[in-house]
Amino acid sequence: MCSPALIEQVKKRISRRNALAALGGAGAAASSGCLPAAVSSKKSTPAKKTATPAPKKRRWASKPVDQVSFSRVVDLSHTLHPDFPAWFSEGKEVTTRGKRTFVPPAVVEVKPVFEWEHDKVNLNQVTYWEHVGTHMDAPAHFSEGSTVDEIPVEDLVLPLVVIDIKVRAAKDPLALLNIEDIRSWEDDHGPIPDRACVAMNSGWAKHVKTSKFKSLDKAGKHRQPAFHIDAVEYLMQAREVVALAVDTFSFDNQHSPGSDVHYRWLGDERWGIENVNNLDDVPTKGATIVVGQPSIKGGSGGPNRTMALV
Amino acid sequence: MCSPALIEQVKKRISRRNALAALGGAGAAASSGCLPAAVSSKKSTPAKKTATPAPKKRRWASKPVDQVSFSRVVDLSHTLHPDFPAWFSEGKEVTTRGKRTFVPPAVVEVKPVFEWEHDKVNLNQVTYWEHVGTHMDAPAHFSEGSTVDEIPVEDLVLPLVVIDIKVRAAKDPLALLNIEDIRSWEDDHGPIPDRACVAMNSGWAKHVKTSKFKSLDKAGKHRQPAFHIDAVEYLMQAREVVALAVDTFSFDNQHSPGSDVHYRWLGDERWGIENVNNLDDVPTKGATIVVGQPSIKGGSGGPNRTMALV
Repeated sequence: MCSPALIEQVKKRISRRNALAALGGAGAAASSGCLPAAVSSKKSTPAKKTATPAPKKRRWASKPVDQVSFSRVVDLSHTLHPDFPAWFSEGKEVTTRGKRTFVPPAVVEVKPVFEWEHDKVNLNQVTYWEHVGTHMDAPAHFSEGSTVDEIPVEDLVLPLVVIDIKVRAAKDPLALLNIEDIRSWEDDHGPIPDRACVAMNSGWAKHVKTSKFKSLDKAGKHRQPAFHIDAVEYLMQAREVVALAVDTFSFDNQHSPGSDVHYRWLGDERWGIENVNNLDDVPTKGATIVVGQPSIKGGSGGPNRTMALV
Repeated sequence: MCSPALIEQVKKRISRRNALAALGGAGAAASSGCLPAAVSSKKSTPAKKTATPAPKKRRWASKPVDQVSFSRVVDLSHTLHPDFPAWFSEGKEVTTRGKRTFVPPAVVEVKPVFEWEHDKVNLNQVTYWEHVGTHMDAPAHFSEGSTVDEIPVEDLVLPLVVIDIKVRAAKDPLALLNIEDIRSWEDDHGPIPDRACVAMNSGWAKHVKTSKFKSLDKAGKHRQPAFHIDAVEYLMQAREVVALAVDTFSFDNQHSPGSDVHYRWLGDERWGIENVNNLDDVPTKGATIVVGQPSIKGGSGGPNRTMALV
């Protein structure tokens, strides 16, 4: 989800990023020292991948899904309701199409049309901004890539890797899942499997009913754990990871004020899930994530039922 | 989904049904000759189950999910868009709370809030009536039972049985999946497994882009295949079936003008999926249905991503 305050900054950053990509894409980032040499040398990202705004529409599951077995289902979703913490929940003034516009709260509204008491039928009209509750960020949220209906269903069923940063996040709401966290996980469990979804477990889900979830600072900015851009580069270049998941409402935090992770990850035809729940109830390795994303034409994301098969 | 023309009829039928239930529930229906004796004698439904409007909130998966293996994922959902065929798609006048009200079309609206071209972000506001596209009917749609957020996630993962009535439906858009179809299936494959979802494959999904899907008659009523109420009684009483699925937009058709199947099934804390797709791509037995139903508080149903693990 984007912060409304970022919209204007973003346009400048896009220009800068495209210039960087033209100089050698992620390789340029690596050569700046933010990635280990082993990563940048393993797969260098050609300039054309990020220099053009419309990425190739990838199909990750070109091979059949590996045989999967399970005997338990875990709900990785929060229940969505009008008070669910969200960006824009107070409404904001933003600039879009050059105009200053008041944007109403990005929450869900459930309005009864028929009610049992009167009609012997219940039926509601539901309205939401796509990026609320446990929801997908499709590539199209931060690029001209695939919308939710363009992601094939077999790419919504992926091996799940859960990386725990709870101890650090308990001390610092701006903690980042960094490249060392991934390496430490791989030392214990081996390389992250192909086609994985990598989830950050920062312990934030348990704060969903309190003000800690947003952790607003004095300037009204949200503070929450997120992914470090270097970790994201590693997962893109050294591993074949399809999706990120976070138990906060953004992959980015104040350390990446230009939504770097969103632009880099979604701009490369990968996708993610925000506001994931119950990561303590699944093993760090071996579960399968299933993202029940309604296939709404043109959607940039939206509320879904995410679950794990264990 | 309910037909708006039915709302008034329904109130009368509810009174009649409650009276029937007080006489012995489904046992009374069986003794009237619409169910075989073997069904009515196996499990008689006590009057209290249907006589009260608020059914007990059941948890079907009290035991762990049986070990399941799969190596293929099939999308059982249609893509939802503003032209998707739906009840109310022309708007209707209905009576609710004693007032005559114009009800707008029950379709989905996807309205851009931010657009890539202008804002370097895409984000839409989505509005829908809950019962459109591939969607759940929760018990609460036709009862005071569970809403979508009250169905535990393990009950959204069920053994899938597909019963084919395509030959009959090709000749008659009002064809019904009847008790003989179920018995014929069981003769070939054994008893329907516990906790199953039973899906009707009428071949209707392939008509979704044509007027055949609605098959409006001269009076403007929809014609489409559905479940026979006796088949539904069998699945409730003689078998432990949790969910129905249909490749049309209703479990009921003109043979059950009072939405009998909806009231009976959903009123017993069971649920269903309408507008299912691609049933030809899954085996008649042995697949697992996964219903990715967004958990929106108070929802009577709603668009979801339904898939099969094969």
